[in-house]
Formats: sequence, C-alpha cells, structure tokens
Amino acid sequence: MNLIENLKWRYATKTMNGKSVPKEKVDYILEAARLAPSSSGLQPFHIFVISNKALREKIKPIALNQSQITDASHILIFATWDSYSLEKLEDVFHKTLTERDLPLNKMDDYKKLIWSMYEPMGQDWHIHHAAKQAYIAMTIALVAAAEQKVDATPMEGFNSTDLDELLCLEEKGLRSSVMVALGYRDEQRDYLVKLKKVRKSKEELITEIK
Amino acid sequence: MNLIENLKWRYATKTMNGKSVPKEKVDYILEAARLAPSSSGLQPFHIFVISNKALREKIKPIALNQSQITDASHILIFATWDSYSLEKLEDVFHKTLTERDLPLNKMDDYKKLIWSMYEPMGQDWHIHHAAKQAYIAMTIALVAAAEQKVDATPMEGFNSTDLDELLCLEEKGLRSSVMVALGYRDEQRDYLVKLKKVRKSKEELITEIK
Repeated sequence: MNLIENLKWRYATKTMNGKSVPKEKVDYILEAARLAPSSSGLQPFHIFVISNKALREKIKPIALNQSQITDASHILIFATWDSYSLEKLEDVFHKTLTERDLPLNKMDDYKKLIWSMYEPMGQDWHIHHAAKQAYIAMTIALVAAAEQKVDATPMEGFNSTDLDELLCLEEKGLRSSVMVALGYRDEQRDYLVKLKKVRKSKEELITEIK
Repeated sequence: MNLIENLKWRYATKTMNGKSVPKEKVDYILEAARLAPSSSGLQPFHIFVISNKALREKIKPIALNQSQITDASHILIFATWDSYSLEKLEDVFHKTLTERDLPLNKMDDYKKLIWSMYEPMGQDWHIHHAAKQAYIAMTIALVAAAEQKVDATPMEGFNSTDLDELLCLEEKGLRSSVMVALGYRDEQRDYLVKLKKVRKSKEELITEIK
C-alpha cells in the first residue's frame, strides 16, 4: 500500500481492543520518528514510550479518561525542550560537525544567525517552536504505524501541567506536547471505524498560483 | 521502498537543479497533505502552491535569498487561520455531520468543550495551535514527496510579515507558517547531498517505561 492508501486506512481510533503491538513494530515506528527532520536538526524533544500499565492508569484521568490510554499497548509522549539556549544549539551543532568530520567552527555564523532570531522570541515561542518539530516526528510516527497496520491515535486532550508533574518533566527541562496511542482498533465497538473520513475538498484547501 | 528507506533517501535539499516536478506528482503530494489528520478535523490552514516564476522571484528576498525558492519548481506555503472562533468550529462540524448523515446537533457538547478550552488561550496560542496542524500536513507532504522521489525542503527561514503582505494573507484571515520547496537535488553542486544524516541516537531521544 502506498502512502495515500495508508492515510485512507488510518483514522484516530477511539476504541482499541487491548491487543499488544509487537516490539518490532514499535521499534520500527520509533526509528522512523528518530529519522524525522527538524529545524536546524535540533530535534528539540524527547519521546517517552509508556507500556507500563500502572503508569497508564495514572495518565488516564489526566487525559479526559480516554479509553485508548489503557486499551492501547503503548503511549508515546512527545515532550519538548522548555526553552532554547546558545549552549543547546552548540551541543547539537558540535555533534553534527563531529559526525561529519568537519571543522568545529563551520557552523558558527549559522549558530549566531539562529540564536539572533530565537533569543528575542522568548520562552513561550521557544516551546511552541520546539513543539512544531515534535509534531513532525509525531506525524512520521503516525505514518509509520499506518504502514505497519498499527492503529495510532494522536491526542492533544490532556492536562499538560499534571502530566509534566507525573513524569517529572520540569526537572528534565521538558514540557509534554502531544501523545500518540498505539494499539489495534476494536472493529465492533469503535463508532468511528464505520464513519466516512471527512476532509476539505481540494478547492477549499488549496490555491494554485501558476 | 518503505518509509524508513524513504526517510533515509530524503534530506533538506539546499541546491536544486531547476527541473520541474510533473503535475501528477505534485497532485499526489497535495492529495496526501489533504488527507492529513488534524485536531478535531479542523484543518485550520490553507495551502498555496506557487509555480509562478515571477512570484517566486519576489518571495526569494523575503526568504533569506535561498536558491531553492527559484530552483524548485513549486513552493508550498502553509498559511494558518489567524484565530479560532465558535463560528469556524461550527462550520467544520456542520460539514462533518452532513457528510456523515448524522444529526446536526450531535457535536454540540464537543464543540462547547473545545471552545471552552481554546477561547481563553488567546490569538497567539490559536495561531501556534493551527500551525501545529499545518506542520502535520507539511510532514505528510514531505513523506509523499520522498515516496515519489521528489526532493522537498521544509523552510522556516522567511519573514512571515512580508510574505503575508505579498500574498495578501491578512485580509484572508491567514498567516504564513512554513514552506516546502519541491524540486530535484543538484547532485553535483549540493554540499549536503554527500554529508551523513545526523540524528540523536535512540538512547538520547527515547526513554521506554515498561
């Protein structure tokens, strides 16, 4: 199946059947997310993969009691850096230049340019910008899951302050941004599985300027 | 090639060779982006597809004079809603319920819940939230392009105020968020094509809680 067929197959599964996603499929999805592009290659986020049932039971009330949290077998939590800093940029660029066997000062001008743009934007913007990069990786995870015929539900409906506290994210310099539940659709019980996928038409969504 | 092979093949092409991406490949990429999921199905963005050369010449100085703008054949500009409103939510849910042949009041409670969360967040948050949804569609476009062996460069480096003015986005209630250049890599001249793809290791990026 190609990407478009996979996109038509997938949907935001509301009711999962409790079956476990095999380790090799979870690993494939995570490897795809790891390879996702990000602005300046920063990958300004961390991914927590939670299969632990007791922890998922604690997350459920923080996430509007949505049943996928416990009926999925794995929850991916994308947690973003709580701010950018010159040191963090330096760390990433140092690693990039080292792995590419390039002079370590080669990205100095670029680093200054990026920091001159990011610094004045403030912490709120930093978190949103980092979250956009996490959304890229999250989307890659959704596509990887569809390719593996694993159901994946992106979830924004949770109290991020409470989740940050539960996972001790603040002391790690992280903030929870978005989640994905990985599992398998319950074909009998999920009302959404039979409903038409609704999207804007090409004419509504897209304007071509030739 | 599967997704992971496609992700390894793609990179943020810096120098393109001027060749045109065929219409059927552009259409495939746009159809994939149209099918991208979004929060509550809102698709709170519009995609401008600019192949017009004169217009791309005007965009180039707004985008740090990056050569892809004119050496690509198409530029996708993802422009997000400049705010959410109860009316906009109603429009989307009305369309969804109509296409699914469901009672038109079926999403009233959900609509109220969403609006009670979105309204107090303010316009800045609305724009960032809408941009995250646009990043999902942008990512799908990157994956679709890689599947079609079309090079696609995601670009954040542009002056969004100037671009909004050039495309008269403000009067359409839109704000430019992110761009993608579609074209073909110049294997001889692009310094990046030969460089190693650098990503954080699995250990650095991912924590499993079993």
